Amino acid sequence: MVARTAFFSIIIIGDELLTGSKVESNSTFISAKLAEIGVDVKTIMTVGDDEKEIIDALGFCVTRSDGVIVSGGLGPTSDDKTKDAICKFVEVNMVEHKEILDDIKQRFSKRGVDMPEPNKEQAYQPEGAILFRNPVGTAYGFEVYKDEKPIIALPGVPAEMKAIMVESVIPSLKEKGFGLSDLHILDAKVVGLAESAVYDAVGPLREWAEKRESICLAYYPHFVDVTVRVKVRGEEEFAEKMFKEAKSILEDILGEKLYGYGEDGLEIVVGKLLRQYGMTISTAESCTGGLVSNRIVSVPGASD
Amino acid sequence: MVARTAFFSIIIIGDELLTGSKVESNSTFISAKLAEIGVDVKTIMTVGDDEKEIIDALGFCVTRSDGVIVSGGLGPTSDDKTKDAICKFVEVNMVEHKEILDDIKQRFSKRGVDMPEPNKEQAYQPEGAILFRNPVGTAYGFEVYKDEKPIIALPGVPAEMKAIMVESVIPSLKEKGFGLSDLHILDAKVVGLAESAVYDAVGPLREWAEKRESICLAYYPHFVDVTVRVKVRGEEEFAEKMFKEAKSILEDILGEKLYGYGEDGLEIVVGKLLRQYGMTISTAESCTGGLVSNRIVSVPGASD
Repeated sequence: MVARTAFFSIIIIGDELLTGSKVESNSTFISAKLAEIGVDVKTIMTVGDDEKEIIDALGFCVTRSDGVIVSGGLGPTSDDKTKDAICKFVEVNMVEHKEILDDIKQRFSKRGVDMPEPNKEQAYQPEGAILFRNPVGTAYGFEVYKDEKPIIALPGVPAEMKAIMVESVIPSLKEKGFGLSDLHILDAKVVGLAESAVYDAVGPLREWAEKRESICLAYYPHFVDVTVRVKVRGEEEFAEKMFKEAKSILEDILGEKLYGYGEDGLEIVVGKLLRQYGMTISTAESCTGGLVSNRIVSVPGASD
Repeated sequence: MVARTAFFSIIIIGDELLTGSKVESNSTFISAKLAEIGVDVKTIMTVGDDEKEIIDALGFCVTRSDGVIVSGGLGPTSDDKTKDAICKFVEVNMVEHKEILDDIKQRFSKRGVDMPEPNKEQAYQPEGAILFRNPVGTAYGFEVYKDEKPIIALPGVPAEMKAIMVESVIPSLKEKGFGLSDLHILDAKVVGLAESAVYDAVGPLREWAEKRESICLAYYPHFVDVTVRVKVRGEEEFAEKMFKEAKSILEDILGEKLYGYGEDGLEIVVGKLLRQYGMTISTAESCTGGLVSNRIVSVPGASD
């Protein structure tokens, strides 16, 4: 169990991310998930599909972090170098994992096709690695160790990376004591105020938090709203009590500008209210040019 | 003059970029601008507002690149550490630049307000630095040298970074011979095909390019379209001739799927056509839920 906050670094791999044609957001997702369990991020690096570059990045990150999460370059084609680079870095060999081969074969046969030859390569994984099954693709994630620090490799396809991160990596990190096991989070969602105005408005909450050693606040600006995060360390019961106090202060200050708690964004809350009251919504948009309706229908099931 | 392709690294600085609350896209813009003059990007790093972290990142990047571009942490407040870190790294002192102080004072007085005390600090810049005036803000950019390699610092506010990058940094890099001065670019914009389908479709263009040493191709997928970039090295006249050949091949293959050349995205081309023919557009969107109209009105002047 790490009593202090753990620091992780993130390495994103892919030539296409160095040409300015694509905004890289896998690291944003990984950072947000780590923040939720109280793991901080120290460095984010993006390098190309090149063995030496990856090894150098690993060297830089491992010496300054408690662990490293790598995403990208796990595909079955020869331009994917991540597995080889990590194996060299941690000095282990790649071995064929029979159970992975069977799993991949089965996935293809379920879709009524034979496994393409290049996918065979995906059964090769570092010897002794902890394997993370990919619920939405054929590239497994894995975890190996260097200087007793975990190096966790995930595919670069966002849906695959996200699934493995949520289903396997976060639970495994928590189990190993990397997160702050006594960390409890309350996300208050605020709309209609810019980040700086929210910061000013919640002065009384800040004063309340500053008096309590086990509580701290964070602010996350999004496109149309701002999340005020209340982080409490301690027993569940204590956290519940603190959250109740925080909610009461926030509701007094913000009134209707506080539109909800938890992970739900504004469009989800609006959709739930419409459904609850059996209402629908029409928009006639001028300046926003369809953006409001676009946000609302971006929620699965919104057209029901 | 660097005859080979120059490699730069990019360091993005800001605590708020490590918490997962914000997607970082300054590095994407910088990479794209460098690609346009033929400078490749080797590493992109994001670190917090911490002197030691910034110095370590600079050390890592300078040894493996021909130059480094840094963005963020140039504000007048005490949590901005970039200038101090760079000064330590290149071993120069910070000195007050009288002309910057006058410039900043004048900007505030034009708006009818006195310069706030913290902004005084912005007149302090590394001794001997080349200064880049900020056309839209008060934080100057600057360039210093380590081991004869340029380290260029830009503000983190996107509009300010972009303005200095386009107006000062790119021309200055070209002048110093970092770009490929004989590089010419043709961007062909394709809609209605996924990236892999575009790649397959333009096989004849690839064959044509492969026969010519001075020509290479690149593919940039965007949200609804794909850019096929034809890069030609040589005299202007030769490039024009090659572009004519490439256009003819592309038009044969792609027909109406090739909707234009140059920087204009699909919504701009659609807007221009509507204007040209005196037409307007109405959308009734189901699955897209306003996204089409939103894209179209995102172009300034679209409502005319």
